[in-house]
Amino acid sequence: MTQARINLPRLLARIAALGQVGAIEGGGVCRLALTEEDRQGRDLVTGWMRELGLEITVDAIGNVTGLRRGREDGPPVMTGSHIDTVRTGGRYDGNLGVLAGLEVIAALNDANIQTRRPLAVTFFTNEEGSRFAPDMMGSLVYQGGLPLQQALDTVGIDGTTVGENLRRIGYDGPAPVGSNRVHAFVELHIEQGPLLEHEGITIGAVTGVQGIHWLEFSIEGTSNHAGTTPMALRHDAGLVAARMACFARDLASRMGGGQLATVGHMQLHPSLINVIANRATFTLDLRNTDGAALRQAVADCLAYAGELASQEGIRISHRVLADFEPVAFDERIVGRVEALARAHGHSVRRMPSGAGHDAQMLARMCPTGMIFVPSVGGLSHNVAEFTQDQDIGAGAAILLDLLLELAQA
Amino acid sequence: MTQARINLPRLLARIAALGQVGAIEGGGVCRLALTEEDRQGRDLVTGWMRELGLEITVDAIGNVTGLRRGREDGPPVMTGSHIDTVRTGGRYDGNLGVLAGLEVIAALNDANIQTRRPLAVTFFTNEEGSRFAPDMMGSLVYQGGLPLQQALDTVGIDGTTVGENLRRIGYDGPAPVGSNRVHAFVELHIEQGPLLEHEGITIGAVTGVQGIHWLEFSIEGTSNHAGTTPMALRHDAGLVAARMACFARDLASRMGGGQLATVGHMQLHPSLINVIANRATFTLDLRNTDGAALRQAVADCLAYAGELASQEGIRISHRVLADFEPVAFDERIVGRVEALARAHGHSVRRMPSGAGHDAQMLARMCPTGMIFVPSVGGLSHNVAEFTQDQDIGAGAAILLDLLLELAQA
Repeated sequence: MTQARINLPRLLARIAALGQVGAIEGGGVCRLALTEEDRQGRDLVTGWMRELGLEITVDAIGNVTGLRRGREDGPPVMTGSHIDTVRTGGRYDGNLGVLAGLEVIAALNDANIQTRRPLAVTFFTNEEGSRFAPDMMGSLVYQGGLPLQQALDTVGIDGTTVGENLRRIGYDGPAPVGSNRVHAFVELHIEQGPLLEHEGITIGAVTGVQGIHWLEFSIEGTSNHAGTTPMALRHDAGLVAARMACFARDLASRMGGGQLATVGHMQLHPSLINVIANRATFTLDLRNTDGAALRQAVADCLAYAGELASQEGIRISHRVLADFEPVAFDERIVGRVEALARAHGHSVRRMPSGAGHDAQMLARMCPTGMIFVPSVGGLSHNVAEFTQDQDIGAGAAILLDLLLELAQA
Repeated sequence: MTQARINLPRLLARIAALGQVGAIEGGGVCRLALTEEDRQGRDLVTGWMRELGLEITVDAIGNVTGLRRGREDGPPVMTGSHIDTVRTGGRYDGNLGVLAGLEVIAALNDANIQTRRPLAVTFFTNEEGSRFAPDMMGSLVYQGGLPLQQALDTVGIDGTTVGENLRRIGYDGPAPVGSNRVHAFVELHIEQGPLLEHEGITIGAVTGVQGIHWLEFSIEGTSNHAGTTPMALRHDAGLVAARMACFARDLASRMGGGQLATVGHMQLHPSLINVIANRATFTLDLRNTDGAALRQAVADCLAYAGELASQEGIRISHRVLADFEPVAFDERIVGRVEALARAHGHSVRRMPSGAGHDAQMLARMCPTGMIFVPSVGGLSHNVAEFTQDQDIGAGAAILLDLLLELAQA
């Protein structure tokens, strides 16, 4: 415990104020990356950084860092996240991590605490990927995993590039990318899932980010009359899609251990009540924290697809839409999140992150961890996204203690 | 065998000529019921009836009958079918039965044969039901199963009624409906399925028409993030739709005996790769020649839906879109189709009809049967619908013999 204390009303006021920028019906936010709304949000947060005495750096991909100097120079202990949102997003996803970082700075300022190492709060460009792919673009470029020029040349859903939008909103900064050094990174984020709420737990000590494998399948069968074609003579593309969806669910249940499998998209053609479908497309979203298990799940699904193709006399093809290896966070940081949560009297559990986060890019550079707080109803990417005030306070207090530990050590 | 002989080139020429009315790309036909194209087709066929010396009657629902008097008065031996098509139909479905009937009349005229009973060739209004529901409307009204006024008041997909379209095309005839008498009815039709071609058989002796039960299911689950929602906490509407499709297929395979089950339409919402579907709709087409077995299949599917609802924590509702009991054709006529096919040197098998036909309405009035000829590739309701010339000739020759037997007996 330190003398510095989170001022929860001040943090909530900043969340509410930033939530007004790009506000949409139902309490949500639409602040797509590098739009006019994003510029207004960036200006607001950058203004707060200045008020808190931080030295502001904008890099060539538009990542903004506010630095609080320590007694020594050297790589900073960093926190942060993103402030862009999806089209119908909430006010917590990403924003909480950035604004809690500013609240940590404010609390240290209030308590007149100078740390040994510098502290930094960063918001990374285009984490959501809703306008420009890939997602987590800013942190990926920051870490050196994506060449700057390739990122700048990325064309978005409206036909314009990342580079021209950065220039337009005035966030094409002078700081170089790709050679950054960070001592440690901790990100506070809402869970975006139902687990903490379901188990009545306040804090998630995030152990890593799941690996993700996205597949899109296309099936070609034969259309025929539903009333005149015997079952044994059918080549039913729709049935094959349904069999695959059931197989994936059963595989995930059989594998256990956090294997997830989702068929969220499925389309039949011609999609008529009395016509056997000649075409079907569907997607398969497979995730696991265990990379080997995930690869096995992918292999099992593809093998079953092959069996079905010969059984049903259909053609089945697929393409890979995404493929990310799992990321493991730093064991020492995960352990400290657990210990600090208990020290504050909160219930805590270790858990993987199901979604991707900027922290997984920083994990390639330095010891990294994340703190999750509960999402009411498990909702996120939804205007109804909400996290209770006391849970925000709990997460921010742990972030404060952990950043301070890391910066003093 | 009689002295009368089918003139196959003459029959094929009429099929080709009628196929020009409403012709569409790919060799198909679009002649929706009671459209201008239907009027042109009706005028062409009615003209041919007059040339053949038939007495023409148009009834109040637009059914057109051409009568060839016999030595005695009384109910005629009737053949016929329909000349309306689906939007992307072929030139054989329905049309073959009507034009083969005219060819039988022409053959009898050529051979100067007068029958004991009158012979009649009828084309019934709106068999397809593509523009006005229900299908088989003209034969249903003819048989007395649907009140005339209700049929006339039926509003079609373009907002106009059957009655106003009948008047517009000039086929709102003076003959009453609902009190018709027919001695026997035989309909020649393409199979519209793959069975005859698959087994290398030329003639199908149709034993009856399957019962049909159409269900539309709506499932309400909960949308959530595919990466953050554990398998055990999901309420996945798409999975439930897939489970139902697999169950229906497996049920049909287990039941055997001609039970058919098809999920041709399926739609998920929001249908995104990384979002668990909160809504799904799908249709289920169940058919069986055995009415009790069909009712059992419906009950089994609904029971499984109930189990799934409680297992998966979703809501599932359904509505019945169609429900027709099976129809059995006259055993003596089925036997004569078999015997005549063999006498002509053709392979023959008994088989149910998977699709509905006007003959099933006539079966409520008089001894009724159908003759099937093979559909290449099993295709129908498709511009590529095709039946080989020699198969058309084989079917028409059996129709001639059977009508003559029935009219002389």
